[in-house]
Amino acid sequence: MRKKTGQNSGGNLWIYGRHAVAAAVGNLRREILKVLCTKETAGEIKPLLEKARRNAEIMKITDRREIEKNLPSDAVHQGFAALVKPLENILLEDICSLAEVKNECRVLMLDQVTDPQNVGAIIRSCAAFGADALIVQDKNSPEESGAMVKASAGTIELLPVCRVTNLSRALEMLKKKEFWIVGLDGYARKDINDMSRAAKTVVVMGSEGKGMRRLVEESCDETVRLPISSKVESLNVSTAAAIALYELGRR
Amino acid sequence: MRKKTGQNSGGNLWIYGRHAVAAAVGNLRREILKVLCTKETAGEIKPLLEKARRNAEIMKITDRREIEKNLPSDAVHQGFAALVKPLENILLEDICSLAEVKNECRVLMLDQVTDPQNVGAIIRSCAAFGADALIVQDKNSPEESGAMVKASAGTIELLPVCRVTNLSRALEMLKKKEFWIVGLDGYARKDINDMSRAAKTVVVMGSEGKGMRRLVEESCDETVRLPISSKVESLNVSTAAAIALYELGRR
Repeated sequence: MRKKTGQNSGGNLWIYGRHAVAAAVGNLRREILKVLCTKETAGEIKPLLEKARRNAEIMKITDRREIEKNLPSDAVHQGFAALVKPLENILLEDICSLAEVKNECRVLMLDQVTDPQNVGAIIRSCAAFGADALIVQDKNSPEESGAMVKASAGTIELLPVCRVTNLSRALEMLKKKEFWIVGLDGYARKDINDMSRAAKTVVVMGSEGKGMRRLVEESCDETVRLPISSKVESLNVSTAAAIALYELGRR
Repeated sequence: MRKKTGQNSGGNLWIYGRHAVAAAVGNLRREILKVLCTKETAGEIKPLLEKARRNAEIMKITDRREIEKNLPSDAVHQGFAALVKPLENILLEDICSLAEVKNECRVLMLDQVTDPQNVGAIIRSCAAFGADALIVQDKNSPEESGAMVKASAGTIELLPVCRVTNLSRALEMLKKKEFWIVGLDGYARKDINDMSRAAKTVVVMGSEGKGMRRLVEESCDETVRLPISSKVESLNVSTAAAIALYELGRR
């Protein structure tokens, strides 16, 4: 059985789940082509469409079977699905401009985190702990998909995402804008609790197991580790990201 | 298609994945009935069996198809599977005895967290941040399963788990042993950063969305919240647990 990914060839994607669809409807920068709901969930969707002043005709009340026809077989949709255009990414220059306007700027960068569910969960933590943006490498990062949007619990609508060609080059540019670059590395000597506190910070994380690539690591101003037991090899990458974001937000 | 759960009627369960199987083999309190591997992975398993002085005859070199016959259809097994007996749980009295011997004792309690993958991920964070035990309610918690063991990345072999009938009663007993009970609650006034620091602490978490049940919450000495953005409804329960455990370990 071929598993549908939720991303279709036209670039549009099906998103699903109560939070994911409600957040998309409420996000005016999100283009929505169609919303599918059931008799039971229509009452929740309708006022959201009205509040966002969206065309009521995009909504279609149908049955679970038709909803499921468009989704991966294991999608937990709760009676909510929508066909949407992917969100527009921001540019690195936008992050630099933002940092000039704001007193504080906190950015997370992922190096080769490829699992859409992990990326979605990381987006949720970014939004929860008030990160300003997420930077990923275009080539090695999953595109926006239903699974990612679901794992973000709809918070993908809140977080600016920047896709760049070369992570080290992006870091060099951010350094020129006075960003302090902190890499997370299980072998670092410094505890994350003791990391330098700067107004503009980028935290860089590699993939589980493999960590950051050498060139990316060399672009870091310092590396820090999470204080985990020597009996345990590593944390899940989304757990590690959440703790780094929490720590970053505590300043 | 009925989804296999990885738990069979005889109480034995199939676990899978490199870390999960390797950790089980190395855990002498884990009874292992059979280890399945492929020609490629046999070289990794054999020395582990020898090191643990386990009977070499429990190992069977086979093909991926036979391994997959025993597992849920979406199981990422990496060529490692084992039929094992579930781990023995500990008693509440064991936690009390441990706390009397140790200067410090940190325990996590879950109220109605029902997803095996979340529980597995939480076990991994407990082990990583050195929690002494996990307490769950027998009735409302998933039994040990292949998915849970996989999500724990094998760290379930390290963490004592205690299943109790009544969580509030368990908390009352722990209070008599001088445990300080901290509940995680999105509506609490106190930030987790400001929580009271006691040598013996239980952190209690409810399920995502629903939170702790009233009786459990009433047994807490204090409630604290994670400092998340007002734009975001909640964190994933395993993310929230990881941050609470990290914070608890920082004392």
